[in-house]
Amino acid sequence: MTADHTIAEPPAPPPPPLAPFLPAPRRSAAEEARTLVAANRVGSLATLSADGAPWASIVTYGALGDGSPVLCVSTLAEHGRNLHRDTRASLVVSADAGDGDPLDVGRVTLAGRAFVPDGWEEDAARAAHVAAVPQAAQLAGFGDFSLWILRVDRVRWVGGYGRMQSAEADAYAAAEPDPVEPVATRARDHLNDDHADALLAMARALAGYTDATSARCDGLDRYGLNLRVQTPRGEAPARVGFGEPVARAADLRAATVTLARRARRP
Amino acid sequence: MTADHTIAEPPAPPPPPLAPFLPAPRRSAAEEARTLVAANRVGSLATLSADGAPWASIVTYGALGDGSPVLCVSTLAEHGRNLHRDTRASLVVSADAGDGDPLDVGRVTLAGRAFVPDGWEEDAARAAHVAAVPQAAQLAGFGDFSLWILRVDRVRWVGGYGRMQSAEADAYAAAEPDPVEPVATRARDHLNDDHADALLAMARALAGYTDATSARCDGLDRYGLNLRVQTPRGEAPARVGFGEPVARAADLRAATVTLARRARRP
Repeated sequence: MTADHTIAEPPAPPPPPLAPFLPAPRRSAAEEARTLVAANRVGSLATLSADGAPWASIVTYGALGDGSPVLCVSTLAEHGRNLHRDTRASLVVSADAGDGDPLDVGRVTLAGRAFVPDGWEEDAARAAHVAAVPQAAQLAGFGDFSLWILRVDRVRWVGGYGRMQSAEADAYAAAEPDPVEPVATRARDHLNDDHADALLAMARALAGYTDATSARCDGLDRYGLNLRVQTPRGEAPARVGFGEPVARAADLRAATVTLARRARRP
Repeated sequence: MTADHTIAEPPAPPPPPLAPFLPAPRRSAAEEARTLVAANRVGSLATLSADGAPWASIVTYGALGDGSPVLCVSTLAEHGRNLHRDTRASLVVSADAGDGDPLDVGRVTLAGRAFVPDGWEEDAARAAHVAAVPQAAQLAGFGDFSLWILRVDRVRWVGGYGRMQSAEADAYAAAEPDPVEPVATRARDHLNDDHADALLAMARALAGYTDATSARCDGLDRYGLNLRVQTPRGEAPARVGFGEPVARAADLRAATVTLARRARRP
């Protein structure tokens, strides 16, 4: 390190709530991992080259009911030859940062051993892969392409700066992908565009920011809404939770309406 | 493989040109690799865990003038601990498939050994990383973050289905990222929206498809245009080359105009 660097002032901590606030649960690391895996179909695979060096490559995947990724791999590809030699592998899947900070998005690494399924397990694997990657229908199981299932032993989730957690393999297998995820972006935009008053009421009544002057929704999930609250004391992140987890995407609207009513209850 | 699969008919080969056509060079594998690395800033890193198993993770990177990736890695992250133990690493970078076929896009794997630079090399590495990832300005070289340069020994480029090639490390270091890449999508759309007549003239006069009824541009680069040509005999891919490689993005328009004039020359 040379001497001409200046370290920026650490940012001031956000202002705390002024009143009691409702508990607002979040997705577990296992749920975050399952949600990321379900929401995507392209990841990067790490395998071992002949000399034991790590090799990174792009793969498509689907997922079985327990979250095990199903890859469709050409034996002509380096990673295909690698898996035949050593079945240890690791798959990383990331949310898309768009134009935002590329390190401030969720990603998950699944590590374990891959195997080539047969019988009913091959049929299930093919169905899972093709459901995610319809283009693979012509490839899966033919010619030089093989289906591989990655049996997950380790799960490491990173949610952005300073948010990271491992999950047990059993917890990963048992967790459910968030059913709200596919509609979350649209729902967030709708709330910000058309329901700023409801978001402000939630920030004041449910998140303890009684002095809030406005609030925007930064994202939402089956357990609740992330808010960005403006107050005369500065900006603060906050979270408000649904009364109970949303079971289906179709129920999100009703859950949000209930939350808004609760915020406005005298 | 079970018995109930049907293999689709292989598609008919596209109709050939009817007249002589101009040679149309393409980017080399080394140029494709350099272009992909220059156009992106997020990749996946494969490193080795303590037990020698491969570990995949998301990293941001910038690139030095010879295309060597510069990573900014936390020693608290698993891949940071891995690199300190074994410096062998591999970085894969992929174009964004958007809603298209995720396997029909370019990607490149760079493999080699990573090292922590010092002195002027550290300064160059920091500048390269921060140029690509401004958010890292607060991190690079401070606290638990270290800059690592990946010295590239192997380069493997895949351009989509059936297009793949390795490049020598020397050729990769010497190649130039395509200066046209940052404006290629916009230029393609402009040609398709406003210059369908010029594309048709190119297909007829320069690509040998004298019976072409229409042509669209599928993509372009410093060496030429990829066309999708409609004929009474079916659809065909074609390529038309610029007289000489485009040196700067700002010269692309003039090169395309010259090509269109040449196609219309009686």
